[in-house]
Amino acid sequence: MSVYVALLHYPVYNRNGHVVCSAITNLDVHDIARAARTYGVSGFYVVTPLEEQRLLLDRLLRHWREGYGARSNPDRKAALELVTVVASLPEALALITGEVGTELELWGTAATATRPTLTYSEARDRLHHGRPTVILFGTGWGLCRDVLGLATYLLPPIRGATSYNHLSVRGAAAVILDRLLGQNG
Amino acid sequence: MSVYVALLHYPVYNRNGHVVCSAITNLDVHDIARAARTYGVSGFYVVTPLEEQRLLLDRLLRHWREGYGARSNPDRKAALELVTVVASLPEALALITGEVGTELELWGTAATATRPTLTYSEARDRLHHGRPTVILFGTGWGLCRDVLGLATYLLPPIRGATSYNHLSVRGAAAVILDRLLGQNG
Repeated sequence: MSVYVALLHYPVYNRNGHVVCSAITNLDVHDIARAARTYGVSGFYVVTPLEEQRLLLDRLLRHWREGYGARSNPDRKAALELVTVVASLPEALALITGEVGTELELWGTAATATRPTLTYSEARDRLHHGRPTVILFGTGWGLCRDVLGLATYLLPPIRGATSYNHLSVRGAAAVILDRLLGQNG
Repeated sequence: MSVYVALLHYPVYNRNGHVVCSAITNLDVHDIARAARTYGVSGFYVVTPLEEQRLLLDRLLRHWREGYGARSNPDRKAALELVTVVASLPEALALITGEVGTELELWGTAATATRPTLTYSEARDRLHHGRPTVILFGTGWGLCRDVLGLATYLLPPIRGATSYNHLSVRGAAAVILDRLLGQNG
């Protein structure tokens, strides 16, 4: 079983439903890397077309992977070693395909389902028996319809006891990885 | 069923195992409030003995609950309305007891279990049939032993596919609320 995570900063919606490029949030990268490491994810791709943002994030990652951060906090190093910064989703998919040497399956996530979804139980089974899978997360107000259209399956929106569904992408990613890969105690 | 969450900034451990007071992290408050709102939690208490930090957080909360933030982002308002800032855990418990009018049960969370824990399935059942419950989360390197000693039960540490257990407290809180109160799709 191999699972990858991609966090897209473009193309995503803003609160008005326009397609935008969102800024990288440092804590998204740290939190999702920590969750990815916890749940045995093989790689975490941070996607933004903005070169300056990629350079900045690469500099931050060097601090934690090679610099003082690596010595002061080896657990954070272990998490952030999973991160690769790329300009586009196709670039991420090409790198992952090169690594696994086989066709990938893409799964989309959204706060509102726009078409039928796998159940989490079906998704867990599929991870064990299916192809290497890339789970796509969107920042801002969520992944653009065109990107969701690339996904073979959507995962169900996270529902709690209420109709409120405004988890942070960091929180939603942790919950989704737990539902797919967590070991219940 | 009524569930409350308390996020303690004191007494918690630092990475060297010393008891410290950690600083409030703005995104902890936002993310845990959003998760609390999603999962139908009745109240979220942010606990710090540092008066300046409480005043600062109260000012930020006013922005989102009454100021420009409330108009520009009503969903965030709905989440942050759950937050109460207090100086100590006893103060939080007194306020909750006043609200529910009955004895409370405290549950502790930790990245490493120091004594037997409920399973998540037992915990779900207990929430439906038991007393109003306050789930305690610690910032920094986790809740001090004395605080965990106040809890009737501990919840199991979150386990993924690996032995790595360094989720952020924001991420752990989202996952734990999902395990206790989530509706699986």
